[in-house]
Amino acid sequence: MPYVQVYITEGATKEQKAELIEGITELMVRILDKNPASTHVTIDEHKPANWGIAGRSVKKLRAEGKTAGISEK
Amino acid sequence: MPYVQVYITEGATKEQKAELIEGITELMVRILDKNPASTHVTIDEHKPANWGIAGRSVKKLRAEGKTAGISEK
Amino acid sequence: MPYVQVYITEGATKEQKAELIEGITELMVRILDKNPASTHVTIDEHKPANWGIAGRSVKKLRAEGKTAGISEK
Amino acid sequence: MPYVQVYITEGATKEQKAELIEGITELMVRILDKNPASTHVTIDEHKPANWGIAGRSVKKLRAEGKTAGISEK
Amino acid sequence: MPYVQVYITEGATKEQKAELIEGITELMVRILDKNPASTHVTIDEHKPANWGIAGRSVKKLRAEGKTAGISEK
Amino acid sequence: MPYVQVYITEGATKEQKAELIEGITELMVRILDKNPASTHVTIDEHKPANWGIAGRSVKKLRAEGKTAGISEK
Repeated sequence: MPYVQVYITEGATKEQKAELIEGITELMVRILDKNPASTHVTIDEHKPANWGIAGRSVKKLRAEGKTAGISEK
Repeated sequence: MPYVQVYITEGATKEQKAELIEGITELMVRILDKNPASTHVTIDEHKPANWGIAGRSVKKLRAEGKTAGISEK
Repeated sequence: MPYVQVYITEGATKEQKAELIEGITELMVRILDKNPASTHVTIDEHKPANWGIAGRSVKKLRAEGKTAGISEK
Repeated sequence: MPYVQVYITEGATKEQKAELIEGITELMVRILDKNPASTHVTIDEHKPANWGIAGRSVKKLRAEGKTAGISEK
Repeated sequence: MPYVQVYITEGATKEQKAELIEGITELMVRILDKNPASTHVTIDEHKPANWGIAGRSVKKLRAEGKTAGISEK
Repeated sequence: MPYVQVYITEGATKEQKAELIEGITELMVRILDKNPASTHVTIDEHKPANWGIAGRSVKKLRAEGKTAGISEK
């Protein structure tokens, strides 16, 4: 029954996405005893211009190399 | 006032999406007596690689024909 | 596989919520040919103070009877 | 810590999106005293065919010029 | 930067929720090389009457013991 | 037409929530030229045990005073 929505910026590979789906499902089953067949995981990928941290888009933060104090990753 | 978010995998036609919007709005009006003019419905379409069930992406499940016990549709 | 999130303000009865779940599921099956066993619907109820339209909370709009032009229902 | 998801139809420029991210972050900091470095804003753009109001898609409403009473903007 | 929303029905213990937060964060760091300090996880707990599968609420499914073919867990 | 979902931890006052709704609506109107009557803002308040940053719940982070490097606010 659980449903997990993952929001990230674009750039994950298919292998990484498959690993995420597998790993999150395994957690739901192991920790909460959920039925894997009814555990859904979706991945939402945002463009860097559509994700803001500290008032700036990730696109700008990356362009300026200003990622030290803000953890844009 | 109600807001309904529909998450599906890609592949619905324009006609199907229009029917969904109409049908869900009709339900909100009939069952909850909501004002149709303020009833919003959005449809979010995910790539099969970005939707996982039972720890596998829908893309893989379809490729392998493993959809019997898992209802990937 | 579909997942539908319904956002409303508090106040729906159990019967209304059951009807919504049934009606939306029926739409997903009929229009999109989805498997009912994997169709999930969740209902999120918000307090009127936590829902704003036109810059005012539904709580205020209702208290002031200002619901004509704004369709707060 | 706050997270804000903005849902709009396609068509905003990069400048508008940057202004939104900046403005919403500034509100979270000023009104709620949140730390800007942990304030995230994402923008989700929907196609007009995937957004319905009053039971019709924004795409149709625009095509028919029926936007007066419904505020499809 | 990632943000993960977990939707479950009520009933998880504090320990289980803490484990979920820890486990999901660890996945985001290990698989996607994300910065843990900017990885957010939220848990949304729904009442069984507000979660439907196959057109019935989880509340009803549990009351009737009809959970075999539907995996309401 | 826009819809904005704000996710915060519990603790905002009614005045702060009203200010947020007003401020965000004003931004959508000013920056994107949206119609205020169709601009919806909802506020979702999470318990500190249900929000995790860096793999720990905000509840724990606060109890331990570990908020310097992590910006749990």
